[in-house]
Amino acid sequence: MSATATNRHWVLTDRPKGGNFEQVLSLREEPAPEPGPGEYRVRTIYLSLDPTNAVWMQYDSYLPAVPLNSTMRGLVLGVVDKSNHEKVKVGDLVSGMGGWADYTITDGKNFGRVPNIPGLPLVAFMGPLGMTGATAYFGLLDIGKPKEGETVVVSAAAGAVGSMVGQIAKLKGCRVVGIAGGPEKCAWLTGELGFDAAVDYKAEGWRKALRAACPKGVDVYFENVGGEVGEAVLDLINIKGRIAFCGAISQYNATQPQPGPRNLSILVSRRARMEGFLVLDYNPRLGEMYQEMGPWIAGGKVKWKVDLDQGLENTITSFKKLFTGGNTGKLAVQVSEEPARG
Amino acid sequence: MSATATNRHWVLTDRPKGGNFEQVLSLREEPAPEPGPGEYRVRTIYLSLDPTNAVWMQYDSYLPAVPLNSTMRGLVLGVVDKSNHEKVKVGDLVSGMGGWADYTITDGKNFGRVPNIPGLPLVAFMGPLGMTGATAYFGLLDIGKPKEGETVVVSAAAGAVGSMVGQIAKLKGCRVVGIAGGPEKCAWLTGELGFDAAVDYKAEGWRKALRAACPKGVDVYFENVGGEVGEAVLDLINIKGRIAFCGAISQYNATQPQPGPRNLSILVSRRARMEGFLVLDYNPRLGEMYQEMGPWIAGGKVKWKVDLDQGLENTITSFKKLFTGGNTGKLAVQVSEEPARG
Repeated sequence: MSATATNRHWVLTDRPKGGNFEQVLSLREEPAPEPGPGEYRVRTIYLSLDPTNAVWMQYDSYLPAVPLNSTMRGLVLGVVDKSNHEKVKVGDLVSGMGGWADYTITDGKNFGRVPNIPGLPLVAFMGPLGMTGATAYFGLLDIGKPKEGETVVVSAAAGAVGSMVGQIAKLKGCRVVGIAGGPEKCAWLTGELGFDAAVDYKAEGWRKALRAACPKGVDVYFENVGGEVGEAVLDLINIKGRIAFCGAISQYNATQPQPGPRNLSILVSRRARMEGFLVLDYNPRLGEMYQEMGPWIAGGKVKWKVDLDQGLENTITSFKKLFTGGNTGKLAVQVSEEPARG
Repeated sequence: MSATATNRHWVLTDRPKGGNFEQVLSLREEPAPEPGPGEYRVRTIYLSLDPTNAVWMQYDSYLPAVPLNSTMRGLVLGVVDKSNHEKVKVGDLVSGMGGWADYTITDGKNFGRVPNIPGLPLVAFMGPLGMTGATAYFGLLDIGKPKEGETVVVSAAAGAVGSMVGQIAKLKGCRVVGIAGGPEKCAWLTGELGFDAAVDYKAEGWRKALRAACPKGVDVYFENVGGEVGEAVLDLINIKGRIAFCGAISQYNATQPQPGPRNLSILVSRRARMEGFLVLDYNPRLGEMYQEMGPWIAGGKVKWKVDLDQGLENTITSFKKLFTGGNTGKLAVQVSEEPARG
């Protein structure tokens, strides 16, 4: 790597409203920053694009909002290309919280080493064995606590997290119903991923179809969407049902706060539990996931897709697919080439 | 008791809309029914009036809606005045699911014996040691799981359940904040019941007052109200906070389903849990409550009030107080005299 490498980076210049990302993010170029004492520099190979990024742009949540006129925050997987850190050397593969940028400087606190599991492409650690997989794995099992034979419903089921949730639930012996937009996605869920049923929420009569797909009601709902879809599932929740509340993508770009479900009080009559969670809390338990999911992924028992776009300059176009239903599987941008691996 | 006793009973003739209870309930008279084989007859002494009764009138929930043109369902405490049941004799005191009526016939399945705890008036078993007390006790401790030093907020705090919740939380070493309507109720909470703070949601600037009363945020929220009050508390919920969802009285008489909280997604960023519960599920565990709460009640450590109206014929007028904030403490109607107790 040349010492005078160029760092392209997306700068957040204003808070987005209604999804106008191209108006509030601007691609700048400058010489790549140098790591200080105890720091190292990561060259981004893959940049993860996630719905929650839209929240980070807008307001303080579980993380502070990204400050205006600074580089947009993002999960990256990359290779160390300069290091003043005693435990990290040039060529190491790491992933963690970086920027929408060619390079990130870190002291290592928000980064971890990418485990070397033979037979798995690097990009798997952006998806099924990365934050995406951890969100599905811990959200479903630790919050939803499905039991064999129960009915699990997941919304945004053809998305990166949703498609994993459904497959894990199948491996745990559940009846799995996915909700997704459009016949192609639904066909993928039942045809390729083994879901028991898929409901196209863009189709006429989808509420009835959902009810028909859940003849014994819903024991676990993995909530990614909110809005009308969330309400429809809530209507079917069983006594002692559990809602693992991962997010509400239908609301992230709304310009006004959106009302919650009109039927929320059903939690009382069904003695049901709705519980939010954040994947970041599970960092200390990632080993559990590698242990159980690693063999599933390597053995092809869990299928996954990365929808990989090329080039940092195309990040905004790619990101917008998350909110228009344009992607299937985990969305990421390839920013630079993978190094040769031994 | 004469064999030709008269049974007055309130008949539900239509589903109420917007709280028009006097238009859908009609007081009828007929000869009192006779118990069949294995059954006994309960003469109502106290009839419990509870917000959930409005739900029973309207639609199927955790119990089927009361059928039209039948006697309105209600919790009663009474004395057995005729019995063909081998284990129950005339003069026994019982409580359970009866009707808004002078008499209830039962096979005993929905009734239990009133325990004889010396020094406690009978009416206590309609309130702090009845379903009201159980709702507060199990909802707070089993669902809310407060820890010493945590902040507990309860809405409808001057109500029957709310006033118990706050006092139990104080006994468990929590900081307790009550939300109630009007300065008198608030003064009662802090002056008589020992709440650390009370917020009058009818006063100007109540949201700010609530925030000021919870400088360390909210760890447990006992939700009785819903609507704007619920939203305001949700905004303050701490990481890993718990919402014991008892009911949403602000919505029971709405003619349209009301939207849920606009800030429901805060459950995700705060990793918080909202869980509904029904006191009926705790019937097998009532002994735990008698054991811990009995001494508190008998020893005056928990204060309670029964707002006792007189006469079955006044039931509707009395019931409406629940929705206008007209009662303080547990609301009940005395239908007939207590028998002399030994």
